[in-house]
Amino acid sequence: MTQGAFLAIDWGTTNRRVYRIDATDEVVATERDDRGMLAMEGGDYADEIARIRERHGDLSVLIAGMAGSNRGWRDAGYCPCPAGLADLAAAIAWIEPGRTGIVPGVSLATDTRADVMRGEEVQLLGAVASGMAGPDALFCQPGTHCKWADLTGGRITGFTTAMTGEVFALLRRHSILAPQLGGAIADGPVFRAGVERARDGDLLANLFDVRASAVLGRRADSDAAAYASGLVIGADVAARPLDRKIAILADPELGDLYRAAVETLGGEATILDSHGAFVAGITAIWRQL
Amino acid sequence: MTQGAFLAIDWGTTNRRVYRIDATDEVVATERDDRGMLAMEGGDYADEIARIRERHGDLSVLIAGMAGSNRGWRDAGYCPCPAGLADLAAAIAWIEPGRTGIVPGVSLATDTRADVMRGEEVQLLGAVASGMAGPDALFCQPGTHCKWADLTGGRITGFTTAMTGEVFALLRRHSILAPQLGGAIADGPVFRAGVERARDGDLLANLFDVRASAVLGRRADSDAAAYASGLVIGADVAARPLDRKIAILADPELGDLYRAAVETLGGEATILDSHGAFVAGITAIWRQL
Repeated sequence: MTQGAFLAIDWGTTNRRVYRIDATDEVVATERDDRGMLAMEGGDYADEIARIRERHGDLSVLIAGMAGSNRGWRDAGYCPCPAGLADLAAAIAWIEPGRTGIVPGVSLATDTRADVMRGEEVQLLGAVASGMAGPDALFCQPGTHCKWADLTGGRITGFTTAMTGEVFALLRRHSILAPQLGGAIADGPVFRAGVERARDGDLLANLFDVRASAVLGRRADSDAAAYASGLVIGADVAARPLDRKIAILADPELGDLYRAAVETLGGEATILDSHGAFVAGITAIWRQL
Repeated sequence: MTQGAFLAIDWGTTNRRVYRIDATDEVVATERDDRGMLAMEGGDYADEIARIRERHGDLSVLIAGMAGSNRGWRDAGYCPCPAGLADLAAAIAWIEPGRTGIVPGVSLATDTRADVMRGEEVQLLGAVASGMAGPDALFCQPGTHCKWADLTGGRITGFTTAMTGEVFALLRRHSILAPQLGGAIADGPVFRAGVERARDGDLLANLFDVRASAVLGRRADSDAAAYASGLVIGADVAARPLDRKIAILADPELGDLYRAAVETLGGEATILDSHGAFVAGITAIWRQL
C-alpha cells in the first residue's frame, strides 16, 4: 500500500481538476481549470505537471481521463471488462515509474457490441470503494456521452455509452430546430412530457413534432428546449433496464434531469457526488500500488 | 376542368424543377436548377416567374413546395387531414387568380401529435391519381425529413415525419463520428447489419458503438458510414408498421437504401418515380380547377 500524500488529476476533454490528497486520504487542495486535453493540443504535458508540482508540492501524480487517450499525453490503453481497482492499478501507464502515471480506461467487447470509457471508471469504482453505492450497483453517468455501467462484486462487468448529450447539442446548434432550442431546460411538466413521449421509441419522429407543433401554434418555443431535452434523455433512459435503483454520478443540474426521466419512466434513482467518487476511486487505486 | 397547357413548379428548399405540361398532360419541357427557396432569400419571386414564362411560354403557373411556406413567396397554409386533390385545389393560394397559384401543404393535429408537409402531398396524391399506387397505400418519402403517409380512399389521412436525413447529416458533418463517416453508402451486408441492429430501438447507444468499434479495431472506418446509415434509417423504419407493402417515392439511390431497410426488417416495399408522381399530382390538381 502506497502511503503518503499524492496529486490526483481528473484530466478530461475540456476541463481539468487537480486534487492534493494527504496521507489520511483527505483532499487538502483543489484546482479546476479549462486546461483539458483539447486545450493541450501541441502543449507539453510534462511541463504542465512540473507547474502543478510547483503549486502543490513535489508529490507523485496519478492521472485519469482523456490525457490517457491516443489524442492526449500517452495512450494508457484499456482494461477489458470485468475491471476492478486492482486491474486498473496493475495496468497504469507510467510516464516515470512510481512518480507519474496514467490510469487506463475500460473496454467492452462482446460478440455484438464494443464500448470504451476513460475517466468514468475511476468514479464508478470510487463510488463503490467509498460506500456511496453497493458493490452490485447500476450506474448512470450523464454527459456528452452518457455511460450506463453495471458493477458486480465491485468490478465493472458491462456498460453502454449513449451519445445523448452530443446528439442534443447537435440539434441545438446545427439543426432546423436550433432557433427553437435556446430556452432554459429544467425538470418540470414540459420536460417530463418529452420523456413520457420517448416511451414510443420514435425519437426521429418525435423531434420533428417539436417543429410541427411550433408551426401549428401548439407549443410555445419557450417550452421547446425542455421538451426536446426530455425527448432525447427519455430516449436514452427508456432503452435501459429500470428494474434496479440507479445511482447517478453527475453534477446536480444534469443529475436532476436524469433522475426525473428515470422516475417518469417508472424507475428509481439517486444522485451521488461524482467528484467525491473520483477522489475516492483514484485514492483507492493509488493506495493499491 | 381546366384545359390547356400550364407550367408546374416543384419549388423546394434547395432545388427547383419546372415542368411545361401540355393539354394532353404530357411533359414537353423540364428544367432543374438550384434556385430553391434558400437561394431566393431577398429575391423577387414574381420576377423569377416572369423569366420562367419567357423561357416556357406565357402560361398559367401552379407551384408546390417550400415557395409556399412562411419563408417563401407567400404562406399558402395547410389543409388539415384528411386531404385529397379536391381539398388542395380548393385551397390554392392565388397570387393572381387563375394565373399564378401555390398549392397548400397538409397538416395533422391529433391530441398527441402535430405534423406538417409541404410539397410531398402533391407526390402522394399524384401516385394514386396516376395509378402508380392504390387509393389505400402506405407511402414513404425519404429525405432530410422523411415522410410516412397513410392514404385512405385516395386522401391523405395521416402521416409521420422523421428527421432521419437531417440527423444523419448532423452526425456526418459535426459529430465525434464525423471523421469516420466520409465513406460511401450503399446497400450491402454492412448497411443491413446497421439496420438489423436498429431493431433494439437504442439509436443513441448504437451510434457510439461506431466509435468504440473503431477505437478497438473491430470495424474498418471504410464501413462506418454505411453501418451508421443503416442504424439511422433502420431506427426510422423500425418505428413504422411494416405489415403493409410500402410505396417508396424517391430517387433510386435513397430509395434503394429504404427498400433494403424495409426488407431487412421483414417488410416489403416498391420504389415509385417521385418526379412522375409530382407531375401526375399537380396536373390532377390543375385539371380540377
